[in-house]
Amino acid sequence: MQPADFGLLNPAWAATPAATTASDAAFAQAMLDVEAAWARVQAKAGLCTAEDAAAITAVARVELYDLAALAERGPDGANALIPLLGMMRKQLAAEGAPAGASATLHRGATSQDIIDSALQLMAARTRTIVLADVRRAGTGLARLATEHAMTPAVARSLTQHALPTTFGLRAANWLSALTASARNLEQVSLPLQWGGAVGTLASLKQKLGELDPEATGAELDDKIHALTAELAVELGLTAPLAPWHTNRTPVVELGSTLAALVAALGSMGADVLTASRPEIAEVSEPREEGKGGSSAMPQKQNPVLSVLLRNAALTAPAHVSSLFLAAGTAVDERPDGGWHTEWAALRELLRLAGGAAAHAATLIEGLQVHPDALARNMALSGDLLVSERVSTVLAPLLGKDRVQSLVRSSLGTCETLRALLRVALPVEDFSDAQLASLLDPLEYLGATGSIINRICADFSAWKES
Amino acid sequence: MQPADFGLLNPAWAATPAATTASDAAFAQAMLDVEAAWARVQAKAGLCTAEDAAAITAVARVELYDLAALAERGPDGANALIPLLGMMRKQLAAEGAPAGASATLHRGATSQDIIDSALQLMAARTRTIVLADVRRAGTGLARLATEHAMTPAVARSLTQHALPTTFGLRAANWLSALTASARNLEQVSLPLQWGGAVGTLASLKQKLGELDPEATGAELDDKIHALTAELAVELGLTAPLAPWHTNRTPVVELGSTLAALVAALGSMGADVLTASRPEIAEVSEPREEGKGGSSAMPQKQNPVLSVLLRNAALTAPAHVSSLFLAAGTAVDERPDGGWHTEWAALRELLRLAGGAAAHAATLIEGLQVHPDALARNMALSGDLLVSERVSTVLAPLLGKDRVQSLVRSSLGTCETLRALLRVALPVEDFSDAQLASLLDPLEYLGATGSIINRICADFSAWKES
Amino acid sequence: MQPADFGLLNPAWAATPAATTASDAAFAQAMLDVEAAWARVQAKAGLCTAEDAAAITAVARVELYDLAALAERGPDGANALIPLLGMMRKQLAAEGAPAGASATLHRGATSQDIIDSALQLMAARTRTIVLADVRRAGTGLARLATEHAMTPAVARSLTQHALPTTFGLRAANWLSALTASARNLEQVSLPLQWGGAVGTLASLKQKLGELDPEATGAELDDKIHALTAELAVELGLTAPLAPWHTNRTPVVELGSTLAALVAALGSMGADVLTASRPEIAEVSEPREEGKGGSSAMPQKQNPVLSVLLRNAALTAPAHVSSLFLAAGTAVDERPDGGWHTEWAALRELLRLAGGAAAHAATLIEGLQVHPDALARNMALSGDLLVSERVSTVLAPLLGKDRVQSLVRSSLGTCETLRALLRVALPVEDFSDAQLASLLDPLEYLGATGSIINRICADFSAWKES
Amino acid sequence: MQPADFGLLNPAWAATPAATTASDAAFAQAMLDVEAAWARVQAKAGLCTAEDAAAITAVARVELYDLAALAERGPDGANALIPLLGMMRKQLAAEGAPAGASATLHRGATSQDIIDSALQLMAARTRTIVLADVRRAGTGLARLATEHAMTPAVARSLTQHALPTTFGLRAANWLSALTASARNLEQVSLPLQWGGAVGTLASLKQKLGELDPEATGAELDDKIHALTAELAVELGLTAPLAPWHTNRTPVVELGSTLAALVAALGSMGADVLTASRPEIAEVSEPREEGKGGSSAMPQKQNPVLSVLLRNAALTAPAHVSSLFLAAGTAVDERPDGGWHTEWAALRELLRLAGGAAAHAATLIEGLQVHPDALARNMALSGDLLVSERVSTVLAPLLGKDRVQSLVRSSLGTCETLRALLRVALPVEDFSDAQLASLLDPLEYLGATGSIINRICADFSAWKES
Repeated sequence: MQPADFGLLNPAWAATPAATTASDAAFAQAMLDVEAAWARVQAKAGLCTAEDAAAITAVARVELYDLAALAERGPDGANALIPLLGMMRKQLAAEGAPAGASATLHRGATSQDIIDSALQLMAARTRTIVLADVRRAGTGLARLATEHAMTPAVARSLTQHALPTTFGLRAANWLSALTASARNLEQVSLPLQWGGAVGTLASLKQKLGELDPEATGAELDDKIHALTAELAVELGLTAPLAPWHTNRTPVVELGSTLAALVAALGSMGADVLTASRPEIAEVSEPREEGKGGSSAMPQKQNPVLSVLLRNAALTAPAHVSSLFLAAGTAVDERPDGGWHTEWAALRELLRLAGGAAAHAATLIEGLQVHPDALARNMALSGDLLVSERVSTVLAPLLGKDRVQSLVRSSLGTCETLRALLRVALPVEDFSDAQLASLLDPLEYLGATGSIINRICADFSAWKES
Repeated sequence: MQPADFGLLNPAWAATPAATTASDAAFAQAMLDVEAAWARVQAKAGLCTAEDAAAITAVARVELYDLAALAERGPDGANALIPLLGMMRKQLAAEGAPAGASATLHRGATSQDIIDSALQLMAARTRTIVLADVRRAGTGLARLATEHAMTPAVARSLTQHALPTTFGLRAANWLSALTASARNLEQVSLPLQWGGAVGTLASLKQKLGELDPEATGAELDDKIHALTAELAVELGLTAPLAPWHTNRTPVVELGSTLAALVAALGSMGADVLTASRPEIAEVSEPREEGKGGSSAMPQKQNPVLSVLLRNAALTAPAHVSSLFLAAGTAVDERPDGGWHTEWAALRELLRLAGGAAAHAATLIEGLQVHPDALARNMALSGDLLVSERVSTVLAPLLGKDRVQSLVRSSLGTCETLRALLRVALPVEDFSDAQLASLLDPLEYLGATGSIINRICADFSAWKES
Repeated sequence: MQPADFGLLNPAWAATPAATTASDAAFAQAMLDVEAAWARVQAKAGLCTAEDAAAITAVARVELYDLAALAERGPDGANALIPLLGMMRKQLAAEGAPAGASATLHRGATSQDIIDSALQLMAARTRTIVLADVRRAGTGLARLATEHAMTPAVARSLTQHALPTTFGLRAANWLSALTASARNLEQVSLPLQWGGAVGTLASLKQKLGELDPEATGAELDDKIHALTAELAVELGLTAPLAPWHTNRTPVVELGSTLAALVAALGSMGADVLTASRPEIAEVSEPREEGKGGSSAMPQKQNPVLSVLLRNAALTAPAHVSSLFLAAGTAVDERPDGGWHTEWAALRELLRLAGGAAAHAATLIEGLQVHPDALARNMALSGDLLVSERVSTVLAPLLGKDRVQSLVRSSLGTCETLRALLRVALPVEDFSDAQLASLLDPLEYLGATGSIINRICADFSAWKES
Repeated sequence: MQPADFGLLNPAWAATPAATTASDAAFAQAMLDVEAAWARVQAKAGLCTAEDAAAITAVARVELYDLAALAERGPDGANALIPLLGMMRKQLAAEGAPAGASATLHRGATSQDIIDSALQLMAARTRTIVLADVRRAGTGLARLATEHAMTPAVARSLTQHALPTTFGLRAANWLSALTASARNLEQVSLPLQWGGAVGTLASLKQKLGELDPEATGAELDDKIHALTAELAVELGLTAPLAPWHTNRTPVVELGSTLAALVAALGSMGADVLTASRPEIAEVSEPREEGKGGSSAMPQKQNPVLSVLLRNAALTAPAHVSSLFLAAGTAVDERPDGGWHTEWAALRELLRLAGGAAAHAATLIEGLQVHPDALARNMALSGDLLVSERVSTVLAPLLGKDRVQSLVRSSLGTCETLRALLRVALPVEDFSDAQLASLLDPLEYLGATGSIINRICADFSAWKES
């Protein structure tokens, strides 16, 4: 029995694209990519030959390595890069690489440079996928918000009926959180890590000094920062201000934005779960052959996508806390266990965000909205749904206490508020038409329309940016 | 025995300014401030008289209310605003306020509008204090970084001696995380919450429509958004895009930036704790009469400030997770328990950030650095500290394996690497002077100087922004 | 503005008994109690006079001390006991205590001995209250389980209708988790902490040796362990195997059992929240004047108790994680920040358990169950609710595929499963009576009755133990 | 690139036995084992033929299934059992199983029955391995505690020198936490889950009723509980009181005990990390070829095992919080996302406990203790180390203030406390021999010996139980 995992216990992201883009193989490929990119930057800078760099690039393919064997040796040095380097050197030798390739490989770098940068690279690649799915979900939500801008729905607070709203505003509220968190995720900086063994880049400076013995220390430093920036460009990462071996702000920022996105989607999923209950039935998840079935009950259709969103939302917060903990316990020039704690947590957040975005896009693109159920549920509260309005409007005529007492009477008996009010209000003071208008939920929707517009415009601005 | 807490079990923030700015009294005052500001905005807009607003402002002083009694009634409605409104109305009556004041109070608002906005206001006030202390700490760190830019120190990774660095770079690394997290905290948006009972602002629109029966719906909506923006200005908060009753992105963003700051300070505290150990003794906390003493051992001087920083860093991650959890489980138009979960967690993060910043400022302003101990500790590793450099430089002359074998010999015996190398290297290939230079840790500091400069410049840019 | 908190931001426990039994004042009183008990034990052992002990006991009243001032000085030594000792000595002097009292006070102890023991004492006192409320809630649940043992209800999985059950079994399931977690909480050991400055009890042994210079070391050790056991008895705590300054197993055990109880109640609260939704309406929270009202909507009745249970359940997990983190980072003979992290987390768990138990007892004692709504909701699924049974029973007659196809037909059309089956099944193979019986949900309740009995019997056994 | 993980980002458990015993393959095998055991129990009860059970047992081998394909279909129903059943049925058909096998497979069960029971089975198997490694580590600790019972060491609190202790007591303290948490882990109940679709076991009762139409309901219920107990025996699990689909107490109990063990080992690892610092150097990790090396610095030997213990200790708390959260949000008869959240968290805790126990055993069995360094570090504090004792003993002679002033003088100058005391104390009052004895740290070890004995005896009692 081998110790590999395939996602059997991680339904929130298994079988979604992020399962692959944040897999162990993807991480290993990212480490290989960083090593290869650094070789190419060295070649451009004259630190090695083009052939050296080409040889390293040629062995920087994950298919060449046995990941189970690599994992087996991970604990020896408490990270996977150290044994990977050994495997790469063996592969270089096996492929008859030029002598300089081995010296070029990993020159001046430390394992944390490669691992941190590889994780950022893996994050960048996963983020692209995540944001594409977020755009799909957001586009679907904007459509729902617009189409149902005037579809009446009951608004609930603390689970109880409160006032009228529209289904469009509900969808817009989901979109609002999605846009805000997606914008943050898109903007979060993914910096290269480059510092050498202890963040001084001493080894690299040594080598540059050998190549250019006339250069001053300041010139060599400029060269170092320039090479670092080139490597960042080569990898599509941000050039760092300085090595950040123990300054884990980039990691907590990235983790927080991922978790905020998961939370936004989880909140939406929680609403869909509620609304999918047979007694409420305001929406249905898209039906797809083979999805949502039960092992025992043939009639059941489970809202699986929303269950997975909720699963993601309940899982992500713990991983975020691990990132903050790791950041707050980082010691020395390079940490003694905190750093190692980040890896699995960050990867899991990437996958949860990826899984949640994928499931959300499917959910929203196929969500079925049931206006008749929305209306039926709203009708359960009858005229009492606008009792806030009745209080405000009729308090000058009847007194606030009287209005409240009529509301209580209606709650306690079978009589509608309308009937009670009709008795209490002389027709000459308040006509039947006035009363009907007062009690019409569609006339008490407030700024619903303009709020929807503002949220949709904000999403469009982000989407098109 | 009364149920009040004073911070006996919260040493990280007890007796710091944030203990007060984020206290229950401060929160109650903030709720009062929101209600009063809204009355004044109403007065400007003609929704009430100036006298109404003045009467409300007059009773919006926390000293007028019994907070223990208020807490006693909090669970009735699961929040403190509902009973506070009752107390305010009683107070208005007692002070003979104009009849319109009671109707003006809380007009069109819901308890979540007031509580969310009050928490943001409390956050804004606490943030000001936090950032002032961060500036003090940062200024001290920049001074240490500059003064000790060339003070040799041993760099450690996984707790072991690795390579030479300088104490100045260590201080700069602390500063780097501090600046990054402080900048984020300063930039995080603190929006007003304003949505009415279910985020439609229906009640406010109703009232505005009564005042201006000719206005179109769109005009009324514009008026609503304008009043919302005015209220935000009145309170010094950001005007929201839309009500965010269930879009908790602002809360998780705020909480994350607070926790990131705590983590940055906690990491620094962890380093000071290590460096304060008697066997290491590279730094000492500032001595202050009555601080750091022991209840049993008269000779002890505990690094209390760093203990408190570590305490904060170990505490904050859990509270962050609660915020993400609350965000991801927000349901309906207003949540059923998730929202309530945010309050204590967010307040605690404000206090932890405030406490940590205050203690860090004191710590750094008085930190004693001991260059002799730094040198003594570095000397423990002898020439082996630059074995990375020896490997690189001498591999062409001796072969990599030979160098590693000499390093191992030196590790395993009492012979210095210098002596072993002297035997191995003919003097004509590598002179004594070359050898001395090769083994001098001060010649292997890499880009230390320019990295310190970059970090200090970044701090200055933020500080002066 | 003073920095005291009253629970305005902690609705889950504000105004419940645990707000008081786990308050700062209660903690201070517990510290005083430990010091006084130790003085009395010393007196019995001849280490001080009865007068000394009486004097210490006399000043061990929390009313004598200014807790705000105490909190103000807490951070000096990173704990509240150090300044409290100073205040106690001042008080002894002020009250003219005998000279020996001051030397007797805190003899041989360290601040951690007192604080850990005080927290355990506070836990013991709060636990008593919690378990009393749990017994009330459990008794109510057992009553509901029995009364509604045959009240039909729809069982749901993944939010969807699944099969018939009874409301009694639902209540029994709530009871099952409650009993299990309450039993664990009752059994969890609350040990005294007693170790002296570093867990060797050296100072106490020194003193005992002075009193009895003839005693061997082993005899003195026996005496020490005997005194420790006596102190435990005096305080109602368990005698420890050994000092546990860095062995935090007792704290994580206590915290875990508290959180498990909160989770059991939170799960129940979540079910009540769902069942209280107007569309479902299977239960109602007890109505009490002034509870559950809205600040804006006079008709609303919020399920406030359940919201508070959910609030507690969402809050507790983070505090548990802090306890485990503190335990896992405890260093040296006494920890450098991890220990300090436990205090607030443990206290909060005590309060959350206390608040949740109190609210749950109120909720269950007054819960209104609506059998008609239970029946109406079950009827929504019609015959399809027993499609599992239909599959099993009719597969031999019709083939499994045919049954599933009929189920799908019924789902997709307005035709009942009964009608479709009637057509498919010749009456001679399966009579009308057989069909009616097959489709009767009350005939498909499985072992509901005996499961309820087992759970109720288990609760009774615990309750009466 | 396939989405499989091998532990590259999980150094704490990669390549340890638990990596395998808690792998996806192990989980799948456990699900298969539960299904097969249930078939065998059915055969014994006459619910199917022996051939049916044999056929199911024959296909219950994980090697027959493609786990990647299984994971791919997991999200369809939000769990892995549903597609696995399909694969098993296909396999039964392919192998020409008797017709009854397919009906026998999973009879009366629901996916949660199988998954919960499989997780408990996986836990039981992993626990066996964990406890074996704990016994190894404990045995090593007991040996260290005994061997070094009188090896002097400095005891530290808040990182500072406090009083003398022995290395043996330090080891005993590690052992104390280990024994307590291991005992709890061994005792925690691992119950079978068995409830059918909604916890009523209706389908099973239906089948049993068909077999024995004369049986009363009560008799059938007895039969159901008997079969459940038999299945538990068959699997080596505990028979449950009742189905616990939404009573997640067993899961939080198991997770808590696992995390407590990890914390005990993490605390030990943190101490080893500190003691391995070159400036302290009191212990060294066992050296093994190829372990602890650095990718850049040939001289480094990293305390990798302790880093991995710390990594585990920083990771586990978040997973515990997820379990409590899942328990507290379980709803309906079977939960809607909370349950799914448990799986990965519980599995990770199993692996972290397994990894930590394995690394701890290796660490402790090979730990090198350096008594000379222990002595040298203790000597740093000189006579001041026993200033507590000096205070107590000499206060009657010199007054407490005078003693404290001498301590301060010694701290502030180069003069030893001995010299200062010699001047202050007339030789006739206190002889040189008395002074030497007073200041001898070995005479101030308190109850060290008997505490070590108590802890070692407790461990032996557990080990041999």
